[in-house]
Amino acid sequence: MTLPNAPTLAALKHAAAGMANRDTPFIFDEWYVAAFADDVSRTLLPRRLLGKRVVLYRSESGQVVALSDRCAHRAYPLSLGSLEGDTLVCGYHGFRFDTQGNCIEVPSASKCPKGIGVASYPVIEKGPLVWIWMGDPALADPAKLPEQEWLGAADWKHSQGGFQLQSNYVSMHENLLDLTHLSYLHAKTFGTPDYARAAFRSEVGDGYFALYRDVVPTTLPPVWAEPTGLVGCDTAARIVKSEFKSPAFHQVNVNFYDSQLPESQRQVSRIRTAHLLTPETQSSCHYFIVHGRDFALRDDAVTAFMHEQLFKAFQEDVDGMAALEQVWETTDADEMYEMSVAADGPSVAMRRYLKARAEPVASLVRVSA
Amino acid sequence: MTLPNAPTLAALKHAAAGMANRDTPFIFDEWYVAAFADDVSRTLLPRRLLGKRVVLYRSESGQVVALSDRCAHRAYPLSLGSLEGDTLVCGYHGFRFDTQGNCIEVPSASKCPKGIGVASYPVIEKGPLVWIWMGDPALADPAKLPEQEWLGAADWKHSQGGFQLQSNYVSMHENLLDLTHLSYLHAKTFGTPDYARAAFRSEVGDGYFALYRDVVPTTLPPVWAEPTGLVGCDTAARIVKSEFKSPAFHQVNVNFYDSQLPESQRQVSRIRTAHLLTPETQSSCHYFIVHGRDFALRDDAVTAFMHEQLFKAFQEDVDGMAALEQVWETTDADEMYEMSVAADGPSVAMRRYLKARAEPVASLVRVSA
Amino acid sequence: MTLPNAPTLAALKHAAAGMANRDTPFIFDEWYVAAFADDVSRTLLPRRLLGKRVVLYRSESGQVVALSDRCAHRAYPLSLGSLEGDTLVCGYHGFRFDTQGNCIEVPSASKCPKGIGVASYPVIEKGPLVWIWMGDPALADPAKLPEQEWLGAADWKHSQGGFQLQSNYVSMHENLLDLTHLSYLHAKTFGTPDYARAAFRSEVGDGYFALYRDVVPTTLPPVWAEPTGLVGCDTAARIVKSEFKSPAFHQVNVNFYDSQLPESQRQVSRIRTAHLLTPETQSSCHYFIVHGRDFALRDDAVTAFMHEQLFKAFQEDVDGMAALEQVWETTDADEMYEMSVAADGPSVAMRRYLKARAEPVASLVRVSA
Repeated sequence: MTLPNAPTLAALKHAAAGMANRDTPFIFDEWYVAAFADDVSRTLLPRRLLGKRVVLYRSESGQVVALSDRCAHRAYPLSLGSLEGDTLVCGYHGFRFDTQGNCIEVPSASKCPKGIGVASYPVIEKGPLVWIWMGDPALADPAKLPEQEWLGAADWKHSQGGFQLQSNYVSMHENLLDLTHLSYLHAKTFGTPDYARAAFRSEVGDGYFALYRDVVPTTLPPVWAEPTGLVGCDTAARIVKSEFKSPAFHQVNVNFYDSQLPESQRQVSRIRTAHLLTPETQSSCHYFIVHGRDFALRDDAVTAFMHEQLFKAFQEDVDGMAALEQVWETTDADEMYEMSVAADGPSVAMRRYLKARAEPVASLVRVSA
Repeated sequence: MTLPNAPTLAALKHAAAGMANRDTPFIFDEWYVAAFADDVSRTLLPRRLLGKRVVLYRSESGQVVALSDRCAHRAYPLSLGSLEGDTLVCGYHGFRFDTQGNCIEVPSASKCPKGIGVASYPVIEKGPLVWIWMGDPALADPAKLPEQEWLGAADWKHSQGGFQLQSNYVSMHENLLDLTHLSYLHAKTFGTPDYARAAFRSEVGDGYFALYRDVVPTTLPPVWAEPTGLVGCDTAARIVKSEFKSPAFHQVNVNFYDSQLPESQRQVSRIRTAHLLTPETQSSCHYFIVHGRDFALRDDAVTAFMHEQLFKAFQEDVDGMAALEQVWETTDADEMYEMSVAADGPSVAMRRYLKARAEPVASLVRVSA
Repeated sequence: MTLPNAPTLAALKHAAAGMANRDTPFIFDEWYVAAFADDVSRTLLPRRLLGKRVVLYRSESGQVVALSDRCAHRAYPLSLGSLEGDTLVCGYHGFRFDTQGNCIEVPSASKCPKGIGVASYPVIEKGPLVWIWMGDPALADPAKLPEQEWLGAADWKHSQGGFQLQSNYVSMHENLLDLTHLSYLHAKTFGTPDYARAAFRSEVGDGYFALYRDVVPTTLPPVWAEPTGLVGCDTAARIVKSEFKSPAFHQVNVNFYDSQLPESQRQVSRIRTAHLLTPETQSSCHYFIVHGRDFALRDDAVTAFMHEQLFKAFQEDVDGMAALEQVWETTDADEMYEMSVAADGPSVAMRRYLKARAEPVASLVRVSA
C-alpha cells in the first residue's frame, strides 16, 4: 500500500491550497461566452452563467440584450415573460423593463414608480459568439476580449457545437492543458499511443499558459488523416500548441504535414479549436466549441466528417470530466489529494493563476504561510 | 444597468426581514386542511403536513383519526401497517395503537408496557374538508376555524380538486392577494388585459387582508361569460374580493352582471373559490381547492365546463409558483431582493403578519431595530 | 394524545445517545464483504465501501486486488481504465499502477517519479465471498474473520443473492436481531402469526449478540414446509437462533422438525442464512446474502423454490428498511425518539456496542454523564 503518508499528504495539501479547484469562487471580471450568436433571437433565452440567472434576447434592431432573469418586483423569471418591441414584460404581474433593466411600467400603477430595476450585463457579439461580462460593469473593456480573429475569418472554415458539462470548469481547463490524455481518454477517436510520450515544452506567462507537443513522425488517426490527405503516411507530423488564453477560452492549434518532405514542399494543414468554458454552477459548465480548418474550405463532406468525428471525441471529455467530478463529490475533502508530474507544469501554474484571480488575499496568505 | 444600489438594497433587506418568505418557520397553532373528506377512508393515508409525517384514517364509526406516522418503537411508518377495527397495527413488529395514539399491545410482551405512544392530532371534519391542528392541542378550539359556511351549503354548487405545489405556501398566498397577475399569468385562461389596470382598494385587519377590484365595464373570458350568459356583452361587471382568511385559507369572491342594466334588473351570478394551503415542506405545499357558484346549480354541463377551465388556470399558478421557487432556490440569499408597489399593500401586510405569527420575537426585534 | 412528554423524551434521548444509528461513523477495523467471489474478474469492478471508492479486479493468477478507485495524479476513477497483465492503467493520462497501488509508469515522463500511489486494501477470498479490510492495514488479521465454515462446506447446499439497501446498516442489523417482525413484515412470505408471541431468550456477549426463539408447535409456511416435508403438520418445531457475529455479518440458524416425534426419531432439517452488510454510504448498504441448507442437497428444484421464496421475503426487508430510512430522513432530529421493549434487549446491546466501537470516547463520555 502506497497511500501517501502523512507528511506527503500535508505537503500535497499545502500545494493544493494555492490551486483552483471545484470549490474556488468564480472569476467575474472576465468576458465569457454567454451563447452562440445563432442561439440568441427574439425568443427569450434563459441561461445560468457564473451561478447567476440571465435572460438573453435581441432587440428589434438585433442588438443582444442580457438582463438578470428575475423580475425586480417578486423575482419571477423574466424569461417566462414576453417581448414587446425592445421591452420585456414580466409574465407574472406585467412589469415592463427596457434593455437597460429599468422598469418603465407597472400596470397596477398609473405612474411607474422610480428606481425599480434589474441588472443588465454588458455584451459583445463577435463572429459566432456572444460574450458577456458578469463582473463590475465599469471594468467591461472590449479590449480585454481574448484575441480570436480566426473565429470569424473567411479563410477559415468553421463548425460549432456545445455541451452541458457536469463538471467544474477548472477540471476542463486542466484537461485541455495536458493533451497527453489523448492517448488514453481518446484512444478510440483522435488519440494515438505515441502522443503521450512525445517531447513537450511549455510556456508560462501572466495569465497565459501553453503546452507545445511535436508528435513526429506519427501515423494520424482517420479524423485527421482523411481530410489532410495523409492516409497511410507513417511519417506525418502533428505539431500541437495548446493555449489557455483566459478563464473563458482555451485554444488548441495543430499543424499537420508529411515530415519526410523538405520544408519548401510541405503542404501544411492547420486546424484550430476554441474551447469556450462558462461556469454554470460550481459543478457544471457550459462548453461551447468552435472548430476551424484552413484547408478544403468548400468541401462540405469534410466539414461533416470532421464535425462528427470531433464531437464524438469531445463527448469523451465530457463523460470523463463528469466521472472525475463524481470522485470529488463523493470523496471526503481530507482524503483528497493530487500528485503532479513535469507535464503538469503549465496546468499547475494555470490553476494557481485562477486561484489568485478568484481569491487574491487567500492566495497570498497561503503562499506566505 | 439599474441593479438596486447598495443603500436601496440595504433598505429592501431591512423591509424583507419583517416579511415571511420560504425560510420562515411554519405557524402551527392554526387549523389546516389535512385532506378532502372523500380521501380519508379505511385505507391508511400518509401525508406530510407542516413538515411532519401524519397518517389519516377513519374509525369504524367514521370518525377521522390522525396520528404521527411513525411507530413509537422503531419509527416505522404506521401508514404501512393495517387497521384492525379502530386500532392501527404497525407493519414491522406489530405494535398496536388506539385512535389516541396509545400503544395497547406489544406482541412480544405478554403485558403491554405503559407509556408507549405517538402523537394524535385534533381533527374536524366539516363539509368537504378535514381540518387538522398541528400545534398545541390545548389551543385547538373549533371556534378558530375560519368562516366557511358556503362550502357545505345547499344553495351553492361545488367542485373540488387539488395540486401538489412545488413552492412554499407564502408565495401562493401572495399570488392570491394580488390578482393583477390574472392579466399576465392567466392571459390565456381567465385573465383579461384590463384586469391589472382596474381600480382597487384594500383592507388590512388583524390577520385579515383583502383586496377589492371592480373591473367595469369589461368583456368576460369564456370561462365566466358562458355559464353566466354574458357572452358577447362588453358592459359586463366583474366585482372581485380576494381575502386572506387564515394562514390556511384564502377565498376569492366574484360577482358578475351586466352593468348596463339598472340595479333592480341585474341578475348577479356569484362564484367563490376556497384556496386551501397546507405547507408540506418549506418548499412544497398541498393546495386544495373548492370552487362554488350560486347559479345553474343543477346544470352538470356547466359544472364540468367550469371545472375544466378553472383547473387549467390554477395549473398556471402551480407552474408559475414552481418557477418562482426555483429562482429563490438558485439565487444567493445576499443577491435576492423584492420591490413592492402600491398594489402589494395587503400582501406585504399579510407577509408581515405571517412573519410575526411564526417568529414573534425575531419580528419584534427587527421592527424596533 | 400520548406523544412522549418532555421528561420521557429527555430520558429516551439520553439512552439513544449511546446507541448507534444512521449518523454513527463507520467501524473501519473489521472485515467486510466487498463482493461475491463470482463478481470479481478481469473486468474492473467499482464499488463504494464504507464511503470510500474502491476498484476490484483479479490478477492474472486469480488473486483479488482492491485499490482506491482514484488515480494518484488527478483522481480520475481507475475503474474507467484498463488492465494490462496485473497492472491497472488509468484511462485519463495513462498512469500505471501495480497490485500494491504503486505507480510504476507515467507516460509523459521517461522515468517514473517516486512515491506516487494509491491505497491498496487487504483482501481475503474465502468460499463464495471476498472480504476486505478498510481500516488500519496493520490490524488486518485474517484470524479476525468471523467463523463461517459452513459457507464453503460440501455438506451444505448454498444459494446467493444481493440487494442495494437504501438504508443505513445499523437498522438492518437491528431488523435481523428482532425476528418478531416475521409475523408482520413477512406475514405473506415466511412469517406466521404465532412467531412474534413465541418465548425467547437472549445472549449478550462482547461483540456477540443472539436471540433464541422456539416456535413450537407451529404450522410452517410453504417456503419451509414444502422442502422439509412438513406440509400439513401442525406440530412442527421452528427453532431459531439469530446471531450478530460482527458489524459485517449476521447469521440466522433455523432447525425444523416434527415436535410430536420422540427426539430419537426426529428428522431435523437445518437452514442457515448469512446476512452480510457492508455500508456503502451513511444511508445505503450493500446487502449480500448466502443461504444454505443441510438437506435435499442435490435437489435443484428445492434450491430454486427456496431461493425464489426467500428472496421475495428479503425484498420485504429491503423495502421496509428503505421506508424506515425515509422517516429518519424527513423527521427533525429533535422530534425523533425510539422506545424499547424486552425483546429489544440484544438489539439495544448491539447498537451500544457499535456506537462504542465507532466512537469510543463519545460513548464513554455519554455513559458517565
